[in-house]
Amino acid sequence: MLCFKYICRVMENRICNLFGIEYPIIQAGMVWCSGWRLASAVSKAGGLGLIGAGSMHPDVLRHHIQSCRGALEITTDNAVNHLPFGVNVPLMYPQIDEIMNIIVEEKVPIVFTSAGSPKKWTPFLQSHGILVAHVVSSSGFAVKCQEAGVDAVVAEGFEAGGHNGREETTTFCLVPQVREAITIPLIAAGGIASRASYNAAFALGAEGVQIGTRFALCTESSAHPDFKARCRGLKEGETKLLLKKLAPARLADNDFSMAVLDAENRGASAEELSELLGRGRAKRGIFEGDLSQGELEIGQVASMVRKEESAAEIIQDLV
Amino acid sequence: MLCFKYICRVMENRICNLFGIEYPIIQAGMVWCSGWRLASAVSKAGGLGLIGAGSMHPDVLRHHIQSCRGALEITTDNAVNHLPFGVNVPLMYPQIDEIMNIIVEEKVPIVFTSAGSPKKWTPFLQSHGILVAHVVSSSGFAVKCQEAGVDAVVAEGFEAGGHNGREETTTFCLVPQVREAITIPLIAAGGIASRASYNAAFALGAEGVQIGTRFALCTESSAHPDFKARCRGLKEGETKLLLKKLAPARLADNDFSMAVLDAENRGASAEELSELLGRGRAKRGIFEGDLSQGELEIGQVASMVRKEESAAEIIQDLV
Repeated sequence: MLCFKYICRVMENRICNLFGIEYPIIQAGMVWCSGWRLASAVSKAGGLGLIGAGSMHPDVLRHHIQSCRGALEITTDNAVNHLPFGVNVPLMYPQIDEIMNIIVEEKVPIVFTSAGSPKKWTPFLQSHGILVAHVVSSSGFAVKCQEAGVDAVVAEGFEAGGHNGREETTTFCLVPQVREAITIPLIAAGGIASRASYNAAFALGAEGVQIGTRFALCTESSAHPDFKARCRGLKEGETKLLLKKLAPARLADNDFSMAVLDAENRGASAEELSELLGRGRAKRGIFEGDLSQGELEIGQVASMVRKEESAAEIIQDLV
Repeated sequence: MLCFKYICRVMENRICNLFGIEYPIIQAGMVWCSGWRLASAVSKAGGLGLIGAGSMHPDVLRHHIQSCRGALEITTDNAVNHLPFGVNVPLMYPQIDEIMNIIVEEKVPIVFTSAGSPKKWTPFLQSHGILVAHVVSSSGFAVKCQEAGVDAVVAEGFEAGGHNGREETTTFCLVPQVREAITIPLIAAGGIASRASYNAAFALGAEGVQIGTRFALCTESSAHPDFKARCRGLKEGETKLLLKKLAPARLADNDFSMAVLDAENRGASAEELSELLGRGRAKRGIFEGDLSQGELEIGQVASMVRKEESAAEIIQDLV
């Protein structure tokens, strides 16, 4: 019965069908949060877990891929199989060639790309049998993804955490427009953390959801406990889209973000903001738990996430 | 049969029940767009039309109320009745006392208030048998509205046109949080223009929707034809939330908005922005059709509105 139910679900949803997953729920690849522990926990629970390559040196990424595959191994009488998982790759990553070669060598089945053009890498990955989804913040770019032959598009709204589009189109406005613009499978992202918003994303025309914030704050996330506690305590309105003259990022309020806001209100140039930002702020905030001076990348919907929970509990709560 | 169907609909939806309307669709009160022609067209089509008092002198408002009542008169053998309609009142309106007295004298059945505290005027209006809804952009303020005894709350997201909240919470994040915070009837606003977004708003927990942009651009709107044509031609990403140091407003891109953006990027003060804004820009843009130097107040979702249509056609398309 379970098997039949599983097959029915996979058949009727293009995202489940494409990735071979039980529920159309993708855990976003997030810097300093989504290593192999989180990704494998999500995939084991029936979603699709993504390792976030953006914060990993190539050798660290290889280790996470191998650990994730190991955790997702299913041994039957006849063969060894693996539940699906993926890697999220920001295309402006400095050692991008090395990263892509590791992904191919380690036989990663699915890659989500972001922050760059999908034209170059989509054919390369697909020629190695890898499925490719690309994250966009406009329907114009979604059309380019479809033309580049990607297997699915993630449409991410203004409310999402971390790096974000320049046009500030919200999930509510973006998803229906992307739906009209493309015919390939569509995943909604930004602001999805509850059953209500999960259902609303489907009403808007999405066939799957990508969830960042709620997974970033769950038990298996590698984020620092202090970061998780701070974000679980955020009130409505306590995140802001900042650094718009560099690359817009949604950050939780803290001393660093207030310094950025002040600088921006004074009309600081991109160079001044770049100097203020410096290097390694996201690691400091998310991984090391420096709640004052780190970059606390998190989505607007954090104010709806209140409790400690596992990845499996999140998925069960949504479906 | 129609009557039975009508009664069933009214019974099962608290917004329909509260306002005595057929469909839970409110046409937003909008400066220079929503006079008696638009409001009465919406109410005749089964929604709730609102006259936007924000751009009217008191005597002009009285004229619009009287014309709206006249257009909505239903004469039966026994009595003269009126279909419901309302007036939207920004509470920072300079002649607010005069406006409120006119509303009472003219027996307006419903008032939507915004941009101010609902504490002072809600009891006054309700003591005259008037239903009161208040527009908010945060769940904290929604709770204050409930405490003030309003009959319904409108939760309006960042994507909405014209004046907007400071916290930039999107419809997708705002509506579920307001839903959790209050028990009284809830109307979603911001980014709603299609059947998909109409359904998504209900999935998020709303019991009705308030639609601005699509009605602002319809046949019965009093906006200038050039304003409507420009807004119907907007591409995704061609509106911006500006004037944040004064009162944040979402405007379509034009020469004036680019001048504001430049000034803000240079760190212009509230005083400088106020001088740049001057007076009467919204009238110039929306009512007089000055597409270069007027304020073109419109929502993000304008890029989904493409054609000339009547208020009745909009409502039929949604339900």
